[in-house]
Formats: sequence, structure tokens, C-alpha cells
Amino acid sequence: MLSFECDYNTGAHPKILEALMRTNMEPCPGYGNDVYTKMAREKIRAACGRKDADVRFLVGGTQTNRIVIDSMLQNYEGVISATTGHVNAHEAGAIEASGHKVLTVPGYDGKLRADDVEDLISRFYADGSYEHMVFPGMVYISHPTEYGTLYTLGELEEISSVCRRHSIPLFLDGARLGYGLMSRGTDVTLSDIADLCDVFYIGGTKVGALCGEAVVFTHNNAPKHFFTTVKQNGALLAKGRLLGIQFDTLFTDGLYFEISKNAIDRAEELKDLFAQKGYPFFKNSPTNQQFIVLSDEKISELAPLVRFEVWERVDEGHCAVRFATSWATERSDIEALAKIL
Amino acid sequence: MLSFECDYNTGAHPKILEALMRTNMEPCPGYGNDVYTKMAREKIRAACGRKDADVRFLVGGTQTNRIVIDSMLQNYEGVISATTGHVNAHEAGAIEASGHKVLTVPGYDGKLRADDVEDLISRFYADGSYEHMVFPGMVYISHPTEYGTLYTLGELEEISSVCRRHSIPLFLDGARLGYGLMSRGTDVTLSDIADLCDVFYIGGTKVGALCGEAVVFTHNNAPKHFFTTVKQNGALLAKGRLLGIQFDTLFTDGLYFEISKNAIDRAEELKDLFAQKGYPFFKNSPTNQQFIVLSDEKISELAPLVRFEVWERVDEGHCAVRFATSWATERSDIEALAKIL
Amino acid sequence: MLSFECDYNTGAHPKILEALMRTNMEPCPGYGNDVYTKMAREKIRAACGRKDADVRFLVGGTQTNRIVIDSMLQNYEGVISATTGHVNAHEAGAIEASGHKVLTVPGYDGKLRADDVEDLISRFYADGSYEHMVFPGMVYISHPTEYGTLYTLGELEEISSVCRRHSIPLFLDGARLGYGLMSRGTDVTLSDIADLCDVFYIGGTKVGALCGEAVVFTHNNAPKHFFTTVKQNGALLAKGRLLGIQFDTLFTDGLYFEISKNAIDRAEELKDLFAQKGYPFFKNSPTNQQFIVLSDEKISELAPLVRFEVWERVDEGHCAVRFATSWATERSDIEALAKIL
Amino acid sequence: MLSFECDYNTGAHPKILEALMRTNMEPCPGYGNDVYTKMAREKIRAACGRKDADVRFLVGGTQTNRIVIDSMLQNYEGVISATTGHVNAHEAGAIEASGHKVLTVPGYDGKLRADDVEDLISRFYADGSYEHMVFPGMVYISHPTEYGTLYTLGELEEISSVCRRHSIPLFLDGARLGYGLMSRGTDVTLSDIADLCDVFYIGGTKVGALCGEAVVFTHNNAPKHFFTTVKQNGALLAKGRLLGIQFDTLFTDGLYFEISKNAIDRAEELKDLFAQKGYPFFKNSPTNQQFIVLSDEKISELAPLVRFEVWERVDEGHCAVRFATSWATERSDIEALAKIL
Repeated sequence: MLSFECDYNTGAHPKILEALMRTNMEPCPGYGNDVYTKMAREKIRAACGRKDADVRFLVGGTQTNRIVIDSMLQNYEGVISATTGHVNAHEAGAIEASGHKVLTVPGYDGKLRADDVEDLISRFYADGSYEHMVFPGMVYISHPTEYGTLYTLGELEEISSVCRRHSIPLFLDGARLGYGLMSRGTDVTLSDIADLCDVFYIGGTKVGALCGEAVVFTHNNAPKHFFTTVKQNGALLAKGRLLGIQFDTLFTDGLYFEISKNAIDRAEELKDLFAQKGYPFFKNSPTNQQFIVLSDEKISELAPLVRFEVWERVDEGHCAVRFATSWATERSDIEALAKIL
Repeated sequence: MLSFECDYNTGAHPKILEALMRTNMEPCPGYGNDVYTKMAREKIRAACGRKDADVRFLVGGTQTNRIVIDSMLQNYEGVISATTGHVNAHEAGAIEASGHKVLTVPGYDGKLRADDVEDLISRFYADGSYEHMVFPGMVYISHPTEYGTLYTLGELEEISSVCRRHSIPLFLDGARLGYGLMSRGTDVTLSDIADLCDVFYIGGTKVGALCGEAVVFTHNNAPKHFFTTVKQNGALLAKGRLLGIQFDTLFTDGLYFEISKNAIDRAEELKDLFAQKGYPFFKNSPTNQQFIVLSDEKISELAPLVRFEVWERVDEGHCAVRFATSWATERSDIEALAKIL
Repeated sequence: MLSFECDYNTGAHPKILEALMRTNMEPCPGYGNDVYTKMAREKIRAACGRKDADVRFLVGGTQTNRIVIDSMLQNYEGVISATTGHVNAHEAGAIEASGHKVLTVPGYDGKLRADDVEDLISRFYADGSYEHMVFPGMVYISHPTEYGTLYTLGELEEISSVCRRHSIPLFLDGARLGYGLMSRGTDVTLSDIADLCDVFYIGGTKVGALCGEAVVFTHNNAPKHFFTTVKQNGALLAKGRLLGIQFDTLFTDGLYFEISKNAIDRAEELKDLFAQKGYPFFKNSPTNQQFIVLSDEKISELAPLVRFEVWERVDEGHCAVRFATSWATERSDIEALAKIL
Repeated sequence: MLSFECDYNTGAHPKILEALMRTNMEPCPGYGNDVYTKMAREKIRAACGRKDADVRFLVGGTQTNRIVIDSMLQNYEGVISATTGHVNAHEAGAIEASGHKVLTVPGYDGKLRADDVEDLISRFYADGSYEHMVFPGMVYISHPTEYGTLYTLGELEEISSVCRRHSIPLFLDGARLGYGLMSRGTDVTLSDIADLCDVFYIGGTKVGALCGEAVVFTHNNAPKHFFTTVKQNGALLAKGRLLGIQFDTLFTDGLYFEISKNAIDRAEELKDLFAQKGYPFFKNSPTNQQFIVLSDEKISELAPLVRFEVWERVDEGHCAVRFATSWATERSDIEALAKIL
């Protein structure tokens, strides 16, 4: 059956499996001290254009958000996020479980605004009793957002500027970063992100890896003894090579960008297809997640033929649904969908 | 270079990589709802001989220990462990980071004794001020232990009996369980463990998988909403298939036991080799980790030729070293070592 | 100088100090095992009209909220509160520091609505991915609220009914409970609260005590080993008598109600005074906190003569200010204020 | 009935109650911003002889230990304590509940040894896998210890020197500090403690106050935003005056030292009494807690006449018991005990 339900429904890009096969019997030191992890670090540092970047590998997105946020905040600090931010809405309270409040600002199609952040911080310090409240200690954004939308370079610069003015780090959740970087209209590059953020991660799980996220502390600012913090959180892989080999492969010959581009190309075809058929869009997304409004009848009609996710009810009779492409989506999948529609 | 430094220095058993290859492009639901995870669960349940067992998959050992212990303890309870237990000594405070004290009893070659546990619990409740102290809420044992040693069935029965008498769960850390089960002298079977423990895990990372541990709650006693707890701890894999496929492969046609037996056979050869050469043993281990006493000169002499771990200093001039075999060790490795020695 | 800045700016009701004096040299067992604590428990149980109530004493409000909420929630659960609830806004992240998310619903003059709670819970369970989110595990309300407002009996019944339908406890923060119970228009009694809530507390700190809050678990539902949880949180007083003697005094011959009534009588006089002088009210509060809108000039003019709290800016040129009465406010204080105004 | 069961069985020193009475109706700002708290701070700073000391007030001992330790440790660090240390044995896991392991060294009559601390730290960093373990981040000692014993100045200097060499803070738990300072044989002054420790506290609860401990950060090293941390832990008193007034009284005209001396004088009389009667001592304590060995018959005989605590069984037929004096013990109490014995 055709499957557009998410971008993590298949395994890994074949080159990753080949690399795992090829290196399988080589004895390597554990815990990320292997040569592949070192090479992956070096290649990512180069791709970011920052020699002072410190790259670490973790297994999944919620894990990364929890560990990065907790290790960069003081106990009396919270993290600012859009209401719709993954850390606020869909991580089962992982941030709070590590002791920190998520301080919310409105989300506009998934994006927060620099002004709202500035306002929250200013109002905080203007309040006579601020010492009784949670200090704003970090800003969290996702790019692409949970709705597939993207910040412009100007928007990122403004947010970064607010953070630097108040001396709090900016953290970008790049679970789907590849799809953002290869989006057709974006003016944001990986270097821009490395320059404007204090920490961000390059998502692997949703961009062709079996698992894995590459955390980039952009200016030698990895928290002290981060290795131990990772271990304490149960996030340290004995066979660290599993992450190293995958990211080494993804950052060799631009594979990460190439496969991300495939997802974008397919998403644009998908978009055209739905537009041609006259379906309204729930959100205008420039990345691999497309949100379309379908009638309940149409949903029932399509359900046995193609997998997609019902996102939320729009009105009586209609729902927003999500169709996601990925590195693995082929043109023939779009053609098959065209026939079904 | 010859490598006996640990049992997680190579990749995965080839059959696992083949299975990952074969299933790679099949779209599967995420988060462990795929068919391979279901099959793996079923096969492990069957291997344990308990229809009421509930099987869950996690990524690594420290993660598993932290999540299982935290989810089965009340906030006012701690976990009893041998001083040498992994949770007490080598997990960077993961248990304490989740809020629980490790209550220690002496370790005898890595093993705790039922009498000491009984004594700790009895003395606790006999103390007039016990409500000011940490309640003993669980017993943690590792099998094989951190020193490669094994409990006898009689010993396990005694510990289990103490736990049941005091209504606290018994948790067995089986990071290297396969090597324990295939040890030549053991009288402990997987069924015995499933019958005597309340929860245990079957280690994958150190027994042929890229990563992964199968947690078995033995009698429909998985903590409520364990899925959400796993997510909150950042331990939920989006591509849960990665764990499902690996354990499905390991529990098909007895692969897990077969490759564990290989490690034991090689370890016995290694043991014979060292014995023949007249080296004293630091511990008498019936599993895949062998602890030998070498002079500092010998260590320097061997270091460029073969990898092994220096464990601890025994006296001026001598150290205990660890040679570990694994599912991947071949007879030719032992022969090569023989030549070197 | 006249002082209306808060209801905790003086010491304790003289009868409390007398009781402390009178009992001072009597040796008593520690940790709440003294006879005064026992008598206080008994009297509070009687005042609540519930023989199955379990009464415990803690030192302050944030401490009580944190311990009660943490001890009654599972790790995967959060607490529902109005956005303006004390636990969400003014406790420095105490709830999150103990691992739980505060799930917010809108506040209407400080009060949450049963419908919003019902809606939050229903939408939660209707969401296909609810297992990835924080479970609603408790409802928190304050009565009086942070704005001095009160729930009606009907409103409390509705909220209680939603909670019971979904089997989650209702927790009422009564830091200023006395002032709520003695408010002129209220139809809510202490018995009602004991019947409708699962746990609530009777505030001492803001109602005549030096410190102390009496937590009432209304139907033998105190969390197991709550004593140890209190100790672990650093909230157990060695000289538990300090709390016992104070609450024993407050609940002897209706002192708690009598002094609360004084605050209400003075607040009504204050209200009349401001109304007569034509000042607009920011909130219509039936309890001891009165919120009035003053011009910036008026604020500057009054500041050297009387203490009050500037609450928030209303518009350019005007702020809302808070005047609080307490058990200690005298009629002469109101008369003095009248002269100043 | 005669009572020697502990040093917190009576109320407060009469001068404290008088001060509470005298100041009762003065309106004061909350949260420790009152004039009495300021004066108390100043007097304690003067008594310590350190202008750069920062003094904060908390309510109880376990609370103080938990907050001080957590706020001075990084998440990956633990605190070194003697096995018998209060934080390890009798605080219901408060330290672990805040995320930190207690790293134990042997206790010798309640005291730890500098050599053992040095050894623990050296071995830690010498271990090749130290990044997988809990970092030693602080040393905790109690003075007097849980057995009433005292460090000599030389011993304190050695421990302090180990801490400074390894750049970790030294924390002294002075729950009974007054009794230590007034002990007849001691060569340790309050200034010495302020010079050698990074943080310590002056116990009030067990030395004449209703509650309260004065934390001294000795060299402008209070953790950033400590106020907010205190609030988050539920340890901030709205009526901070309660602590300020008590400590202001205790540190006016040397009251703290005078009443501590009373306890010591009575303890010495008690000691002489038991020695004359030929009872063996369980520990040789120079402070207000005396540990004597009594036969079970003697214990039964005394129990209806005088209160004391049965500490632990020594052999079949004998137990160690504790008799504690305090600021409130009178010579007539000792004489009455003499008659009973």
C-alpha cells in the first residue's frame, strides 16, 4: 500500500546499510571513540563552516531536546517555546521531568516571533516579584516547525539577536533540518544556523538514518562533562559506531542534502497534484509535510488505498490530513497517488 | 590487531544486517507498532515460557536500568544492589538522577547474598525511625555479574523468596544474559529467570545486536503507561522496527543462544590457554569475560599485539586484565593469541 | 505607616503566641507526634465534618502545593490549572522541578471552568497520539483565587463532578481559605469543600499563623508513606509542635473563622471607602484582597503614607493596585486610610 | 517525666518568644526582606569574622542539606560523606531525590578522614572510565557528628586542604554547631569554620529556636539566584521574620553560645554521673549527646521514669542508649536523674 503517513516509516538509506555492512567486523572502541564517529564530526563541522563547533551524537529527538535543554539551563531556568513546539506538546513532559518549565509564547503556523520573546523576557524582569518565577533561560525553535513551516533568515537573525541581547542560548530543533535546508524558497543555510544558534541538531531519524541526531554546539560551548550527562540520561550507545557510521555516510558527498532534496521534489509534486485537484491546503508548507483539507467521505474513500495521517478536525465534515514525503519517496509513488485521487 | 577488549567492539551478527536490508523499504508504523516488534515479542514470550509476560524494547543497558527501576519504585523507595552492581558503580548516577537511592549490600565476586538482603530489610523495619530513611523497594542483580560470575538456581530461588516475602520486585540485569544461559556449568534457564524475577532484560547490545535490550515484565506487571514513561525519558525510537527486527532475528531458530554459545566456547579455549601457560586467574568466571593476572612487563609486551582491558591493580608489578569473547570471536582468534602468548 | 500591602506582614494572632509561651517548656515528641498536633488534627477533622479525613501539617504554600501534587500524581501525569494559578505562575517552577507539567486552561478572574477541564481531558483521550503527551492527572484550583474571587458551590460541584467522572483528584489550594469561607456572599462551607475535593489545605500563614498549612486528605486517601515524602522534601519539622500548637489554637472556639471574619469586615469597609470616593475596581473581589485602579499620580501621592502593592499596569496613566486586609487589620486602620484618601 | 530523649523536645529559648511577642504587630516585608533578618545576617557575619560571608535562613536541617548540596553541585556530581553522615543515612533519600549520589567513605565515630577523601578522588580520576561514573563534587561533614564527636582543627584543615586542592567545596552541617563550639576540649572556633569551609550552617532547631538554620556561604559564593532555588524547593517562608527574629535574638549578646554552654555543662555532669555509677560509654562524646551502654533490665527499669533514646543493640542483653542535654536542661534534671540511677 502507498504510504505517506510519516517520514520515518522506512528503514535507512541503502548507503547507510552498505556502510554498516562494510565496517561490521572491524573492532572499534565503544562510546563514540571510533574512527567513524570522528570522521562524522569532522565532516559536520566542515559543513557548518565552523571550526569551533563541537559535534555530539544522540539517538532520538525527544532525548536530544531533553538532554540539551537540561544541560544548558540552570535549575531555576525554563525554556521559551511556541505553544505548538514539540517540547511543549508532544514529548510526554520530558522537559518537565528533567525539572524545567516550558515558557510558552504564541505559535504562528508553528513559528514563534522575536517580539514575543523580547516581550516575555522584558516583562519578566520588569515584574517586581520575578525572583518568585521561572527565569527565561533559553529559546527553543524548530526548523522546519511541527507544521512544516520555515523561518526566514531575517526572522532567525531577529530571534538570535534577542537571545544574545539577553545572554541566553538559542536552540534549534532540526529533526527535519535537511528538508528545511533544501526547501525551494528558503534563504537559510546550514552556516547561517551555525552562526545564529548556540546549539542545534541535524536530524537523522527522519532524514534517512535508522536513528540518530547530530547535536552541534556552535562555538566550543558544549556543557562541561556532556559525555557523563549523556550517560546519566541513559543515552550513551555502547556501539557508538552505529551513529558515527550513519552520519559519516550522510555527510559524505552531500548525501544528506541530496536525499533531502528528493523529499522536497516529491513534496512539490504532491502539492501540485492536490492543487490541481482543487483541494484546499490547511497550512502552506514549503517542506516535506503537506497539510490538506479533505472531507470525511474522501478520507474514508482513500483510507484503504493510501496511508496518511488525520491531523485535526477543521469543521463538521472536514479534517486536515498530513501527507509526508521522505528521502525514500519515489516519483512513482506520486503517480500512483495521482491515479487514486 | 587481535581484539578481546570487550563484547561490543564489532557491529551486529550478519543475520541481523541481512534482516535490516531485507525489510528496509517496507513501510512500517513507528514507535514499536510494527509487525517485527510484535513477532519479536511473541518469540521472546515463548522462549520464556510465560504467556503472561509483557515484552518491551529499549536501546541500551543504563537506559533500561534507569527506566525500569524508576517506573517500578515509589518516590520514597530505593533499590538494593551489590556494591559492585552496574547501577551503583558505572552508570554516572542514572538511578539517583531519577530520584532513587541505591541501597548497597556487599558483593561477593559481583553477587549479592539473599541473607544480606533479608538482613537489610529486617533491620530497616526494626529501626524505630525507619520512616526517616529510604524504603527498600526492589532488588537489582546482574546475571552474569560485572565479574562474569553467575548465580546458581538455588541462589536465585533464595533471593526471589526474600523479595516475595517482602513484596518487593526482583529485577535481573541481563546485559550479557545469553552468555550466562550458555555457560557450561549453569543450572539456570531462561524459564527459571522468568519464573523467579518480576522483571529482567535480555541484552542485545553485548550479544550480537547493534543496540537494544528486551525488557520482560514476567507476569502482566508492566508499569501503567510504560510507553509514555519511555517517551518521557527520551528512550522511544521513532523507528521501533530497528529493535523489533533485531530481536526477531535473534529469537528465530535460536540464534541468540547459538551465538552466545560461540562466545562461551571461545572463552573456555581462552581459559585453557591461559591456564596452560600458567597465568593465575583474578576471578573464576564461567562466562565470556575472563580475568587474568599479568605482570606489568607482560602487559607492555602484549599491548601492541592484542587489545584487552586493564581492569585493576593487584599488587606492585601485577594487574588484573580482562579478555572478553563474544558472538564474533573465532577459533582462529584464540589460535592467534596462543601464538602471541 | 499604614500597611495594606499583604496579609502576611504581621506576626501571629496573640492567642497563638500565648499558646506557644504556655507550652514552651513541656517536653514533646518530635515530628508531629506531640499531643497538640493530635488535637489539631482532631479539631480540623471535626470542623470538616468528615471522620475519614486525614490531616497533615506543612510549613508553607508552595511547599504544600509541590508535595501534594507530586505525591498524588504518577510520573507521566500533569496537573490542570488556570493560567493564573499560583502553581503555574508564581512558584518558581516548583511543580516542574518535581517532574510534572502544569496543563493550563484559561482563567476567568482567577477561576477555571469545569467545561474547559472536561474539554481538555476529552480532547486528550480523543487524540490518537495521546500516549506521547502528558496525562491529565489532577485538577488544581485556588479558593479564594489569586484575584480574591470565589467559586460558587455550583461551580465547585461541576468541577468535582468532572474530576470524579475521569477519576482524577481535585485539589483546592486554600492559602486564604478562611477569608473565602467568611466572605459575605459565599454559599460554600468547609464541609462542602471536604465533600467535593480529594485534598485541600487550610492556610495558616496568611490567616494568623507564623507559618503552617493544614493539608486535608478528605477520605483516607493520604498517599502511602506521606511522612517519608515530606521528610525527603525537606519539609518535616523536628519541632512539629510549632504547627500543631498553632492550628490547635486556630481551631479552638472558632478562632480561625473569627479572625477571618475580621479581615472580611475590614475589606468591606475598604471597598465602601474606595467606592464612595469614586475609584473604579479592577476586579470585583468578595474577599480580603481588593483591587482598585489608581492613577499614577495618586499612587505617588499615597506611597509615602500607606503601603499597598502595585499589581499591574492598566493603561498609560493608571495601574491596578492591591489593598489587603487581614486578621490583624483594625477599624482604625480603615479610618486612617479614609483620612488619607 | 524527666526527658533526655533529644535536643528538640522543648519549645524555644524564652528570649526568642519574647522577641516574637515584642515585634508581633510591626508590619514587615515578607520573604526575608525585613529588618530583623538583615540584623541577624549582620550579626552572624560579624560572629564569623568574614565580611564577605553571605548568610541565608532556611527552616530545617534536611531542607538545608538538600538545597545547599543541589545548588552547589552540577548534575553529574555527587557529594562525599561518611557512611554515617545524616545525608546518607537519615534524610529519606533527599539528596538522591534532587538527583545526586552520595559517595561514601568510612565513618570513624561519625567522622570522615581527609586521606579517604583524597583517595576516593584520586582513584576516581585514575580510573580510565571515570566519565561513566559520578564525579566527586563536594565534601559533606557534620560537626558535631551524628555521634556527638568533633573534628580537631588539624583534621578540618586537612579536609579543607584536600577540597581546595581538588577545587570542590567543603560543606559543614552544623545542626548542633553551638554544642560543638562550646565543647570543653575543642580547638575549633566559628572563625576557623568560616575560613576552612565554603558553606556551613549554624543550627537553630536543635539549639534553642522553634525552627531555622542559618546558612553561611563564606566568601560571596552563594549560588546565583539562590532565593529562587529556595522558593522552588518550597523552602521560602512568607513570614521570613520568623527566622530573622530568632537568629537576631540568638546572636545578640552571645545568647547562642551561652545556651550551648549550658547544654555542655549539663552533659559533662551527666557523663560524670554515669561514669561514677560505673556504666560503660558506647562512644566518647564531648558534646551534648551522650551514648551509654545499659543492660536490657536497666532500660526497662528506667523507661517509666526518664525518657531517653535506645540507639542500637550492642550485644545480647545490652543496648547503647542516648541521653541528650540541650539549652533547656537544668542542673535539677541531672540531680533528679542521679536519684533515679
